[in-house]
Amino acid sequence: MKIDGVPYRSLWWNKEQQALEIIDQRWLPHEFRTRLLTEMQDFVDAIYQMQVRGAPLIGATAAYGMALAMANDPSDANLDAAWKALEQTRPTAINLRWALNRCRAVLSDLTKGERAARALGLAQEIAEEDVETNRQLGQQGLPLIEQIAAQKAPGEPVRILTHCNAGWLATVDWGTATSPIYQAHEAGIPLLVWVDETRPRNQGALTAWELGKQGIAHRYITDNAGGHLMQQGQVDLVITGTDRTTRRGDVCNKIGTYLKALAAWDNQIPFYVALPSSTIDWTVSDGLAAIPIERRDAEEVTLVQGASQRGAIASVRVTPAQSEAENPAFDVTPNRLITGLITERGLCDASEQGLASLFPEFAAATAE
Amino acid sequence: MKIDGVPYRSLWWNKEQQALEIIDQRWLPHEFRTRLLTEMQDFVDAIYQMQVRGAPLIGATAAYGMALAMANDPSDANLDAAWKALEQTRPTAINLRWALNRCRAVLSDLTKGERAARALGLAQEIAEEDVETNRQLGQQGLPLIEQIAAQKAPGEPVRILTHCNAGWLATVDWGTATSPIYQAHEAGIPLLVWVDETRPRNQGALTAWELGKQGIAHRYITDNAGGHLMQQGQVDLVITGTDRTTRRGDVCNKIGTYLKALAAWDNQIPFYVALPSSTIDWTVSDGLAAIPIERRDAEEVTLVQGASQRGAIASVRVTPAQSEAENPAFDVTPNRLITGLITERGLCDASEQGLASLFPEFAAATAE
Repeated sequence: MKIDGVPYRSLWWNKEQQALEIIDQRWLPHEFRTRLLTEMQDFVDAIYQMQVRGAPLIGATAAYGMALAMANDPSDANLDAAWKALEQTRPTAINLRWALNRCRAVLSDLTKGERAARALGLAQEIAEEDVETNRQLGQQGLPLIEQIAAQKAPGEPVRILTHCNAGWLATVDWGTATSPIYQAHEAGIPLLVWVDETRPRNQGALTAWELGKQGIAHRYITDNAGGHLMQQGQVDLVITGTDRTTRRGDVCNKIGTYLKALAAWDNQIPFYVALPSSTIDWTVSDGLAAIPIERRDAEEVTLVQGASQRGAIASVRVTPAQSEAENPAFDVTPNRLITGLITERGLCDASEQGLASLFPEFAAATAE
Repeated sequence: MKIDGVPYRSLWWNKEQQALEIIDQRWLPHEFRTRLLTEMQDFVDAIYQMQVRGAPLIGATAAYGMALAMANDPSDANLDAAWKALEQTRPTAINLRWALNRCRAVLSDLTKGERAARALGLAQEIAEEDVETNRQLGQQGLPLIEQIAAQKAPGEPVRILTHCNAGWLATVDWGTATSPIYQAHEAGIPLLVWVDETRPRNQGALTAWELGKQGIAHRYITDNAGGHLMQQGQVDLVITGTDRTTRRGDVCNKIGTYLKALAAWDNQIPFYVALPSSTIDWTVSDGLAAIPIERRDAEEVTLVQGASQRGAIASVRVTPAQSEAENPAFDVTPNRLITGLITERGLCDASEQGLASLFPEFAAATAE
């Protein structure tokens, strides 16, 4: 997508430096900084520290990490070591493992001499596929917005609530939850996006920044506000992303998603989850029982980062010095609360049947 | 309650200065500052700017404001002017109007010469009544905690989630939601309190500060986390306060309360609301339709205040400079989601019958 008129992706291969260049998202929305990842530790840090975040982008970044590892040392031992180092960075998003396993499966069959070039090619393919998948997913989701728009008076915006950042910054391009939104905007449909702040790390600010750069009307709200807005009839549709989706359509996404799903359900507002099929974990059915929930550093809760009055990036502690904090990073929204899933192959119910109807080859391969 | 061993209330009359002294809560939990309110504008600012907040405390502060007004000018015109100036500060909490109307009703029947002394006496009465009401309310709620404790292994804490600050800082003393908690702690029951941050103004930090000063174990969590903790069986009980309760038991409280009530309901966790009967609006039945929701300044959302690394109080902007924010301050939790109400006269269902059974004299006086 564009930043001040210039097309960008969230990562790109820097041929001159033979390294991956990323947008270091820790400084957004206040500063736009890019960063070169030149060593394996850079990749591990980038994912763990959330310089890059969002399930699809983590997957693509990890694939480039494998490419760098193979360029440095294409041995079997290093293939394993790179896989392990990257796999341990984040436990919840399934795309990370999906991308790493895909790379390992291809590379382990090759000779050492072939690995470096193929690993880079594979990372490029994964990145390009992500862009195309998200574009398609947006096309599939667009009619949902068109249908709501058709029932409105001319000029009345379709009001969409989203949680966290499932935008182009969470993917290589387009985003997942935002892809139908961007395509509706391109189609000339008036929109108003309610952007959940998404504490503790305030990824809503990334979404607000993205939407602002595309010229899409939006309002930043606290995570507490969405239920009230739904009660007051001010939300037409909810779309979120997902970090891991089970075969029956339970959705593990950023902490707080479950609360918005409950509110949408209570107010009969359609609640959709947009996902590339790479976020589906076909080996898991019951998301609440089976998905490990990452517990992150308490300082993400106790400290809040922003821009100081002088424009510098600063953190303030919001809690009493002696108080401890707890920081679960994800929750699971049971499929019963989800109106439907938006995938690159179309919409379906959040159910085993629904997903199997769109992805029969995967469903069959992992049937219980 | 005590601060570092010294008993405090959230406000007290300063006889020497003939003025009201308050804890200026805008600086907590980082700095403990008190403030003298010596003019009517001080009272208006204190309530509007949330130097004092919490429905019961706003009511008591307003009563002292009436006392100050009568000391300065006990005319009918000034009685009306003071009522109006104070009444306009906050639209949602019913205690404000309850206290002001009570003062005006008593004072307007008196001669001008009698008003100043009586107004101060009345404010003291309202403050003392609040303390006693909240103490009783805590006694009534205590068995709920005792019953859960009785089912636990020895030493296992009762885990209570609360939203916003319905603590002693929101009242004159004891708090509403915290009164059963403080009394359970005094009774030696092990507790763990999950403290919702409560964006935008992070009143959870006030609750964490209060609990820390009483030595009660607690964890500060983002507003997004409570649903997940409930799904994981880590919450035994939810207790919140309320800014206005309708005759059928709908509860208007700090924004986000509704989301926690939905999650408690979805996970079969008891959800109680603690309230002095002064927060009941007997004239309103349907809270969603009839209670005006205060929309506050967007800067409460876009700016976050805390302590800088050097310990100074500072604000940071968390949003992109161009993004607008929306700031509804309250939401309404429908009575169907509430397990019960904790009042100074006992527990009851969140229903017209429930409240009428405890407060027959008010229910009858306002019967439709």
